[in-house]
Amino acid sequence: MTHIFTREQIERILPSLHLLPAIEDGFARYSAGDAVVPPVGELLLPGGEVHIKYGYLRDDPYYVVKIASGFYGNPQIGLPSSNGLMLLFSQQTGTLEAALLDEGHLTDIRTAMAGAVAARHLAPPQISRIGIVGTGTQARLQLLYLSKISPCRQVLVWGRNAQHARTYRQEMEQHGFLVEIAQSPDELLHTCQLIVTTTPATCPLLYARDLRPGVHITAVGSDTPAKQELDPDILAHADLVVADSISQCLERGEIHHAVAYGVLSREHLLELGDIVAGRAPGRTSPRQISVADLTGVAVQDIKIAQAVYSALTSRSV
Amino acid sequence: MTHIFTREQIERILPSLHLLPAIEDGFARYSAGDAVVPPVGELLLPGGEVHIKYGYLRDDPYYVVKIASGFYGNPQIGLPSSNGLMLLFSQQTGTLEAALLDEGHLTDIRTAMAGAVAARHLAPPQISRIGIVGTGTQARLQLLYLSKISPCRQVLVWGRNAQHARTYRQEMEQHGFLVEIAQSPDELLHTCQLIVTTTPATCPLLYARDLRPGVHITAVGSDTPAKQELDPDILAHADLVVADSISQCLERGEIHHAVAYGVLSREHLLELGDIVAGRAPGRTSPRQISVADLTGVAVQDIKIAQAVYSALTSRSV
Repeated sequence: MTHIFTREQIERILPSLHLLPAIEDGFARYSAGDAVVPPVGELLLPGGEVHIKYGYLRDDPYYVVKIASGFYGNPQIGLPSSNGLMLLFSQQTGTLEAALLDEGHLTDIRTAMAGAVAARHLAPPQISRIGIVGTGTQARLQLLYLSKISPCRQVLVWGRNAQHARTYRQEMEQHGFLVEIAQSPDELLHTCQLIVTTTPATCPLLYARDLRPGVHITAVGSDTPAKQELDPDILAHADLVVADSISQCLERGEIHHAVAYGVLSREHLLELGDIVAGRAPGRTSPRQISVADLTGVAVQDIKIAQAVYSALTSRSV
Repeated sequence: MTHIFTREQIERILPSLHLLPAIEDGFARYSAGDAVVPPVGELLLPGGEVHIKYGYLRDDPYYVVKIASGFYGNPQIGLPSSNGLMLLFSQQTGTLEAALLDEGHLTDIRTAMAGAVAARHLAPPQISRIGIVGTGTQARLQLLYLSKISPCRQVLVWGRNAQHARTYRQEMEQHGFLVEIAQSPDELLHTCQLIVTTTPATCPLLYARDLRPGVHITAVGSDTPAKQELDPDILAHADLVVADSISQCLERGEIHHAVAYGVLSREHLLELGDIVAGRAPGRTSPRQISVADLTGVAVQDIKIAQAVYSALTSRSV
């Protein structure tokens, strides 16, 4: 019997779960070579794109197939652009154990949690202000999950659309944050110690000339070869450049651009899971500059799908 | 709202459907370049393998993702080795429209129907006896679907396991066939005009020395680079060598072996969809020898998923 869960059931159980340790364990095992994660499947349609991420961790009960789509005309007809589902199959028999019809929500959550993992291991110890670039779903979720690893509630947000920035401020203030709106992205580098970039921009929004010592930047928006939010010189100047997956970040994301520009070499790269596991040093001084490039790895899907499924079934017993 | 259908619901509606024209249309449009079908995704586990086939036909309402697995130790614990499901998503918005939890059954059916399509267009007009190599699921389904395109009910079967062959004879005689059991595979080439090979063999079972004029062979078993049921010289001697997908058959299946042995060249190959559509000639004389190499193309999954879903929803209205 396949267990099927709706987005509503999944959203209801999420607040009770402590998923960060599971995501951390996923990154650690991925970097240790414990994960089998084939290349991402990709299907392009006239109005959107579909990614299929799949794989398994050795000795886990399940393998996971995650299908996620982005159809960028959806908001014009009142639908979210993201959609998708996660499927869990037995590693022993191939039987479909569960379908999580999360409509892409778990992908949003696991992406936000990766940002919190990166900040926990790389941000400086004192954060007086968090900077957020963008005003969409990830701009909201990243901030909400950062509150689990940092007591800072002062926020400076920048977005292209002033109305969206005001809506963002209003919403996040209801969650206990004190939000100011920046007139330009460079203001964030002048006053924030932790910055998360969350847009689908294809040209840099933050430049190396505005860098101050003691900042950590998590770049979440770029997950394709074309998208880019950071001036490659930011990565060149950083003391620590960390990839969620080195092999994937050489193909897409910010690191890929910096390597292509010839300002960053592969030897300079660290992998998030090695830092989480203590196999590589993370930040060693408050004045270091660090960048985490998160392009999204199937191991995050594998971990969140299993954790959510486990919680849903133990509740329904 | 995602529509979810169980294997039971799907099996119940299947006998009322005439799916051969849909599968033929799928092959025709695939060969005409109307399908977007990325390379097959593959996941290998210690006890099994998983294939992800996905894509869409332009101007269709849905794109389809099919996940199919083979876990070859399953029969030892009383489970079928095959499993899987098919998912239909809107081409306009990415919304998951339906999940067909068919447990791999629709993959079996669409594979059998491809055999019937090949036989309809390539077998000689007079068939006095059908030869079946193998005694498993495809050995059964291929014969059942051939009865839709040929009145012949005389069958000669060969299988490695004599007990399985006797069970096969018993079962198929209940479906109105007259089944004899061969002592060796070469007997089939001596007396049958239509032969279907359905095993996961990795060495040839049928040899060119036994070929007679006026035979058609459909090779269904080999769908990986390693599997092989036909002596490459059979393909070298054939007047017609037809692939379900030329690009895929150059990578896996019987054609792939014959090309690797240097006895068959790419220019000699025809594609099933071109013959179905009348863009390429099929059999032009009763004495020709023809071979169809079927490795399984996502367009079959796309077609059967949409046809079954359409029938299920019009019934449930």
